[in-house]
Amino acid sequence: MIKLDRDRFIELMVEQSEIGATDDGGLHRLALTDADRQIRDWFREKMEDAGLDVRIDEFGNMFGRYEGAEPDAAPVLVGSHLDSQPKGGSYDGALGIIAALELVLTLHDNEIRPTRPIEIVNWTNEEGSRFQPAMQGSGVWAGEHDLETEYTKTDSEGTTFEDELDRIGYKGDVPAEPTENYDVYLELHVEQGPYLEDANADVGVVTGIVGFSWGELTFTGESDHSGPTPMHYRSDALVAAADVITRIRRIPGTLGERTVGTVGYIDATPNSVNVIPGEVTLTWGFRDPDDAVVQRAYENVVREARAAAEREGVDVEYEETMRASSVEFAPRCIETIQSTTTDLGYDSERLISGAGHDATHLASVTDTGMVFAVSEDGKSHSPEEYTSWDDCYAAAMTLSNAAVRIATE
Amino acid sequence: MIKLDRDRFIELMVEQSEIGATDDGGLHRLALTDADRQIRDWFREKMEDAGLDVRIDEFGNMFGRYEGAEPDAAPVLVGSHLDSQPKGGSYDGALGIIAALELVLTLHDNEIRPTRPIEIVNWTNEEGSRFQPAMQGSGVWAGEHDLETEYTKTDSEGTTFEDELDRIGYKGDVPAEPTENYDVYLELHVEQGPYLEDANADVGVVTGIVGFSWGELTFTGESDHSGPTPMHYRSDALVAAADVITRIRRIPGTLGERTVGTVGYIDATPNSVNVIPGEVTLTWGFRDPDDAVVQRAYENVVREARAAAEREGVDVEYEETMRASSVEFAPRCIETIQSTTTDLGYDSERLISGAGHDATHLASVTDTGMVFAVSEDGKSHSPEEYTSWDDCYAAAMTLSNAAVRIATE
Repeated sequence: MIKLDRDRFIELMVEQSEIGATDDGGLHRLALTDADRQIRDWFREKMEDAGLDVRIDEFGNMFGRYEGAEPDAAPVLVGSHLDSQPKGGSYDGALGIIAALELVLTLHDNEIRPTRPIEIVNWTNEEGSRFQPAMQGSGVWAGEHDLETEYTKTDSEGTTFEDELDRIGYKGDVPAEPTENYDVYLELHVEQGPYLEDANADVGVVTGIVGFSWGELTFTGESDHSGPTPMHYRSDALVAAADVITRIRRIPGTLGERTVGTVGYIDATPNSVNVIPGEVTLTWGFRDPDDAVVQRAYENVVREARAAAEREGVDVEYEETMRASSVEFAPRCIETIQSTTTDLGYDSERLISGAGHDATHLASVTDTGMVFAVSEDGKSHSPEEYTSWDDCYAAAMTLSNAAVRIATE
Repeated sequence: MIKLDRDRFIELMVEQSEIGATDDGGLHRLALTDADRQIRDWFREKMEDAGLDVRIDEFGNMFGRYEGAEPDAAPVLVGSHLDSQPKGGSYDGALGIIAALELVLTLHDNEIRPTRPIEIVNWTNEEGSRFQPAMQGSGVWAGEHDLETEYTKTDSEGTTFEDELDRIGYKGDVPAEPTENYDVYLELHVEQGPYLEDANADVGVVTGIVGFSWGELTFTGESDHSGPTPMHYRSDALVAAADVITRIRRIPGTLGERTVGTVGYIDATPNSVNVIPGEVTLTWGFRDPDDAVVQRAYENVVREARAAAEREGVDVEYEETMRASSVEFAPRCIETIQSTTTDLGYDSERLISGAGHDATHLASVTDTGMVFAVSEDGKSHSPEEYTSWDDCYAAAMTLSNAAVRIATE
């Protein structure tokens, strides 16, 4: 077992949280902005201080290699991401990076040399808020997305990903792909949900990631003056949209214990107090550990949208914009993480992740596992996001010792 | 009876529709823009051609006086507005102005001199889309709004009303108030609803204007990641909003035959596919000829909003932003317009206006009446707005002859 330096670990967490900090204790560190450049520069320096061999790939993913006793053995890869949501929280992906950094600093300081090399990684643009999609860097690296296509993605100002990556000086020369076989990928992340806190657990052992269906509904009715148009003459796109929103609230309760359904986005046209909305677009999002349940939710929302459109006399078009199958993590990763928590004396809880992570893509490349830190009130993507130092440390200890255990096997 | 020059009348309608025309046959002639200046210049020239004494008041309202046989008699005021909605239609207020113009041109050409002076008027900013509120010029003139306050109103760019009025050269020197007693105010407008077409009427005799309640509801819940947050942990502001929208669709049917209720505007925060909406604002608008029904609608929406908020575990705040009592037009105006249609051989229909007009404010100053022209499919505030030349002409003939009749009494 290794013991991380708790004080240094907290200090590193605080230091990183000051780059891109918001006044209310949150973090605004969007991918490929100046704040992202600053945190990357900081992270590179820290990796160099730990004696790591640093490399940056063509997509900006940052790797640091702590050499193993057998340099040709398949490495253990450990990482997460340093970018944040707009006005997000300071734990999110950063905790996973700082834990990985503290792991190699501890190995370096104590001259511990596991059999396998340990690489730590900061994936580019996990959040997907400035450039879409989310988990972009890990997606390119794992071969799920085409590098050239992702280079051309633009932010809301029309600036391309490639230009911004170049501007901040993080377009590296190493290919954005696995250049050798990796033994495992391990990632620590905050839970972003309430299950661990509810279970009074110290740390979470993640068994997989839910699948999801995302889509868009557009209702088209008749835009008319809201005064002189009698109710029975109306084809109000917003009424049909509202009808579906209330139904999407109810669909999960008919499908499964872990099913969730959300309308996060709505846009009405012309959106004027005095005009009946002629067109409304909204998004749906359903998630469940069981892909068959996701499919049923998708069928349900399409059926409800058609019925709502018919009731209000409007047209509806729908498009599923993304579907992802659920991910099951490698049993040997789950078991190693689980036994590590036991050996460390932590109360752990097994759970499935309700959110996507870089581990989603990594699972298609190598055996993958995740550790979750407790999230107070399940808050995330918000300045209110909070994990106590005890819980941060427990998760970092679990991640580090599991990584060392696998690297030493 | 006088007979308007149908060809000239149509030609004037076409000419005005070319100033601020959109590619799809609509009109984009927002108050105090260059297009508004152009149409005002055109209108002033036409008034001068008709021998009218033109004056512009401090708020840009444009008057043209056709002198009466008894210059000291209280004048008959006839008018409407030349500004349009964004991407609006080319009939709307313009038809009422062109009819008034054609009236005085016909009197002028045929050297007809009624007892009372006849004044025609173009009210500034009836639409209220660039500067709020709607019916601003008539409201100031009638003493419902304070001139200095309205001068400071700004458009979305932050430009003040007064600066723009000055810029287009229509800040006149006549006080924006009734400088003498007026006998009546008459206004012709397109119906903007389907009642006349449904009744196969040639023209409408308007008996009054509905009252209304406008307001704003803001639901505040918890903004959370839409993946890991279980359904029973959520306080989704959009779900509560949707709940109320579906109820506002139903409230009118429980209150009255002419009651309407609309949610025209909705804004969700943060409005991201992947985040549970934490705050949603929407507007309500209820109208009915009976003020007591408007009050009941208001009480209903507040009750429904509280219930929806409670069901979803969110907070709600509400504010009624505007309440207007219904208006009843002067019986002598209604009767004169009615008998004029009979004498002209038109099938007329009595109806109450579902939309506000400058006549709303004028009714507090003098006896007021309105003529409605048939709207095809009830469309308005849209390029699809359409009234046949036959229906335009029938309404203009009704307005003109009713005005001359009153001016000759």
